[in-house]
Amino acid sequence: MNINERLIKTRNLMELRGLDAYLVLTEDPHQSEYVADHWKLREFLSGFNGSAGTLLITRQYVGLWTDSRYYLQAEIQLRDTGIELFRDGEPGVPDYVTYITNLLPSGARVGVDGFTLSYKAYLAMTKELYKFGITVDYKVDIAEEIFSPRAELPQDEIFEMSTETACQTRAEKIQSVRDVMLQKNVTHYLVSALDDIAWLTNLRGADIDYNPVFYAYMIITANEVHLYVDPHKLTAEVSRHLEKDGIIVSLYDHYEKNLASLPTDARVYFDPAKASVRNIHALPREVIKVEGQGIIGALKACKSIGELQHMEDVHQRDGVALVRFLCWLDETIGRERITELDVAQKLLEFRKMGEGFLGESFGAISAYGSNAAIVHYEPTIESNATLEPRGLLLLDTGGQYVDGTTDITRTIALGSLTDQEKRDYTLVLKGHIALARAIFPQGTRGVQLDTLARMAMWRDGIDYGHGTGHGVGYCLNVHEGPQRIAKTDNGVEMRIGMITSNEPGIYRAGSHGIRIENLTICQRYSHTDFGDFLCFKTLSLCPIDTRPIIVSMLTREEREWLNDYHFVVRQTLKDKLEPREKRWLENALAEI
Amino acid sequence: MNINERLIKTRNLMELRGLDAYLVLTEDPHQSEYVADHWKLREFLSGFNGSAGTLLITRQYVGLWTDSRYYLQAEIQLRDTGIELFRDGEPGVPDYVTYITNLLPSGARVGVDGFTLSYKAYLAMTKELYKFGITVDYKVDIAEEIFSPRAELPQDEIFEMSTETACQTRAEKIQSVRDVMLQKNVTHYLVSALDDIAWLTNLRGADIDYNPVFYAYMIITANEVHLYVDPHKLTAEVSRHLEKDGIIVSLYDHYEKNLASLPTDARVYFDPAKASVRNIHALPREVIKVEGQGIIGALKACKSIGELQHMEDVHQRDGVALVRFLCWLDETIGRERITELDVAQKLLEFRKMGEGFLGESFGAISAYGSNAAIVHYEPTIESNATLEPRGLLLLDTGGQYVDGTTDITRTIALGSLTDQEKRDYTLVLKGHIALARAIFPQGTRGVQLDTLARMAMWRDGIDYGHGTGHGVGYCLNVHEGPQRIAKTDNGVEMRIGMITSNEPGIYRAGSHGIRIENLTICQRYSHTDFGDFLCFKTLSLCPIDTRPIIVSMLTREEREWLNDYHFVVRQTLKDKLEPREKRWLENALAEI
Repeated sequence: MNINERLIKTRNLMELRGLDAYLVLTEDPHQSEYVADHWKLREFLSGFNGSAGTLLITRQYVGLWTDSRYYLQAEIQLRDTGIELFRDGEPGVPDYVTYITNLLPSGARVGVDGFTLSYKAYLAMTKELYKFGITVDYKVDIAEEIFSPRAELPQDEIFEMSTETACQTRAEKIQSVRDVMLQKNVTHYLVSALDDIAWLTNLRGADIDYNPVFYAYMIITANEVHLYVDPHKLTAEVSRHLEKDGIIVSLYDHYEKNLASLPTDARVYFDPAKASVRNIHALPREVIKVEGQGIIGALKACKSIGELQHMEDVHQRDGVALVRFLCWLDETIGRERITELDVAQKLLEFRKMGEGFLGESFGAISAYGSNAAIVHYEPTIESNATLEPRGLLLLDTGGQYVDGTTDITRTIALGSLTDQEKRDYTLVLKGHIALARAIFPQGTRGVQLDTLARMAMWRDGIDYGHGTGHGVGYCLNVHEGPQRIAKTDNGVEMRIGMITSNEPGIYRAGSHGIRIENLTICQRYSHTDFGDFLCFKTLSLCPIDTRPIIVSMLTREEREWLNDYHFVVRQTLKDKLEPREKRWLENALAEI
Repeated sequence: MNINERLIKTRNLMELRGLDAYLVLTEDPHQSEYVADHWKLREFLSGFNGSAGTLLITRQYVGLWTDSRYYLQAEIQLRDTGIELFRDGEPGVPDYVTYITNLLPSGARVGVDGFTLSYKAYLAMTKELYKFGITVDYKVDIAEEIFSPRAELPQDEIFEMSTETACQTRAEKIQSVRDVMLQKNVTHYLVSALDDIAWLTNLRGADIDYNPVFYAYMIITANEVHLYVDPHKLTAEVSRHLEKDGIIVSLYDHYEKNLASLPTDARVYFDPAKASVRNIHALPREVIKVEGQGIIGALKACKSIGELQHMEDVHQRDGVALVRFLCWLDETIGRERITELDVAQKLLEFRKMGEGFLGESFGAISAYGSNAAIVHYEPTIESNATLEPRGLLLLDTGGQYVDGTTDITRTIALGSLTDQEKRDYTLVLKGHIALARAIFPQGTRGVQLDTLARMAMWRDGIDYGHGTGHGVGYCLNVHEGPQRIAKTDNGVEMRIGMITSNEPGIYRAGSHGIRIENLTICQRYSHTDFGDFLCFKTLSLCPIDTRPIIVSMLTREEREWLNDYHFVVRQTLKDKLEPREKRWLENALAEI
């Protein structure tokens, strides 16, 4: 069955159910950013396999919305499908809800699988469509009938973190959650985000590529903790430990039924951006719904001192792998034929030598030359470019370790560069440094800091379409909320202990892509008459290539920051390297 | 009757109506920032006369919430009243809704006058209180029974702008509104913001001090325009012109009744932050409510080319008055006794000599030394400080002209300064320049630019509690929406033609206050591969005092900006001054 046949089949189902349009979202029932194959209906129906995208199918028409990270990839993957690409975020491009209101007449019906749609998105969508007389049926799951062959729900085994690496017992974490529930005056807390569940239980899984999570739900009350999970995934030992901690295990499939049987006087807390509309509408009508940002999300984001120590350790191991790799790359380029895939493979090999390495924290982005202009490019056997001793290689990779998670991007000069490449590189570096050096009052949100990373390139009429920083989990998802440094405001304040990336970039289609990314810890900087001030401490340890820098474009403060950072890299890594690698490092870290 | 007796009387009324608490807001039924005396119940009950503040009265307790502009003023005015001051925005200070949920038990009832409460605020408040079992009765207006003597609703005459100064006829403006209504697919547009009505009708009034508006409502449909206003305010000529343009005048008091009789199939558009809950709840239940930002607000904010030309003219006249005043001040300080009030009076006299001057655009802030640390300080006969030939004078003033509105702050060295005063002054200037020099992509919102004005002082552990920029009307309110440059995100993009202030500051209680403010026009800067980029053109024309500057703290770019700005001030004003004043100007504008 090709794309066209799949769409025809979808339209037949739509006609049967009296639907004028059908929406296929990216999410699974847990609103995960990355999902198990079982949930990849959008890819099945469109061929587009980016991590973000919404497909709208009407009787005559198909459109796909995705963000700027995937503009180029979607263009390529949608070619010859007849599916129109909408570049979300570009001026003048309507979002899909607005598009529906323009396309469909009053009285039209839109179908969607309400498990893949958050309660918040459902309310926003129906409020808008209602004005135009369009209704939404959120109980239409066409995957059951059309998605074939479809992967089973994953069955991977769950493992338990050691107390030493978890730093806090699950009993302590549950108590922290209950303290917040008491404050919020609620009786039940619904947890559907998979990383929240992994964090609270100190369990990890392998249900989703790169994300050590497992499919489950939880309900927490003042006296009980219910975990809804396929029991086959639990070893006898883990089951025993859970029982000992008073955690009641039920079948994954029983979650919705149990929601429906909550006491009618319950005061139920949930995050409307994480809970699905199907789940929330399953609750008894009488319960009081209390919406708010995830309680666990806020606790999990502020890493404990123990977690931060492990994260610093992990970044030393990761830094050693990176330096070894960079030394190898410099020695090999121009001598042997190497490709984007070779590079990713080689770096993975170096990482595997590190203690506690579990695997990559996301699919390595190894992008040479114009491939790097595709922001979330992942090399495939077809696209795999051979590196030449000129231009820039963008390498965005990360590792999962039993005691932490890394995410780092370096853009590396493989030889001669154009003036534009050098200028763009220096502008990205200026943005990276401005954010890294930021000092800001407690209460500052990511949106207020985002501009620091962009202001230098804005003066040159340049911008990038992705966010500047995301939270990072602790042996968990490499993209973790709730904080974010981006143009949009999510209302979340930067708080002490948060780990956030700093990753401005510049992308020129057909030419090159540049990104420089470190992870940072948010720390206290000072207390003054005006209150507490915070700053970032850089966590990642790896030289930033100085060869592409136009030094005259940097201020004294910017040069100082780079030299200071490189001093720390040298001091931390030099004794962990072979003499050959150490010599390479000394050279790479020469002061500018 | 003193404050205490008024509160006792309020409590008696609360008891009669079975209310556990009563909320007194600052707004009038049009959600005006500044209101006619008729609506100043909060001041009557508390003594606090700032432009922002909410009073909460329970059976045992009274609290007042206000923002950082008014912390010091409220402290002084609430002294000995027994009213507790809540500093809104300080860490750990609950907002009044949270405070109510902590204070009152489930089942409690809170009264409020629903004319003074926006629909949006009502929904937010009741949603929160509902979780705690607390209900709101929004139909309790105690002012009727308690506010005595109470000023009548103002009866000032309305005047019409000339076609030359209005730049657009009201028919053209109404057509623009109807175009947007069509796009939004609505049949009725409710207008309650007074400056929106003044803009659309090309009429001006004098109902509120400093704001040339008049109390009125409007309903606009595809075929009709209804203006609800006291007809005594309209001259025969204005009435004739309105009739000619097909505008139907009804009594102000008939607005609510007419809302109740809208056709049940109406699709009614309104701004939930501007319409009162009383008005919206008066609508027939069946009408479809379509909420969104004010249509007129968006049109009015982007000044036409004609309006911008007038604004530039007005700023030349205003600049001449300012330079004359500053010259006089330099000649007089240390020679004659002058006070804060003298200074404000003198500047007003110079402004009165300008063509088309109508009056001040807000109460002059003339604040010497530590008085300037009170952000919205207005000198009174009691507080009126005598200026000494040392320290800083903060002067925040503005003018209403028939063809524009101005708002400018200068902080002036009257003699010797402390190192801290100089350093703070230079940090404020760095912030002002960073924002003035900003270049940013189309689509950027104020919250993204706010940090530019703060980043230099943040490095020194300093911040200010007010916003950095507000919109300014055209012969209209000196504070105008929808755009804003501030820490909070209101979702509004900076657009070409918007006039916005740039006014960072530093305030040290008991010592000094510094603010440097110019108005700016948002303009196109460039078009690149990455889209359109915008910038600010400074509109205000007046020297920035260079005497307090620590020149070594400025970058080359910052010095260049200041010298370039002063070059424009010199070129524009020099031929409009007396020789004595011109010499003073040349000296004040000497390059740094």
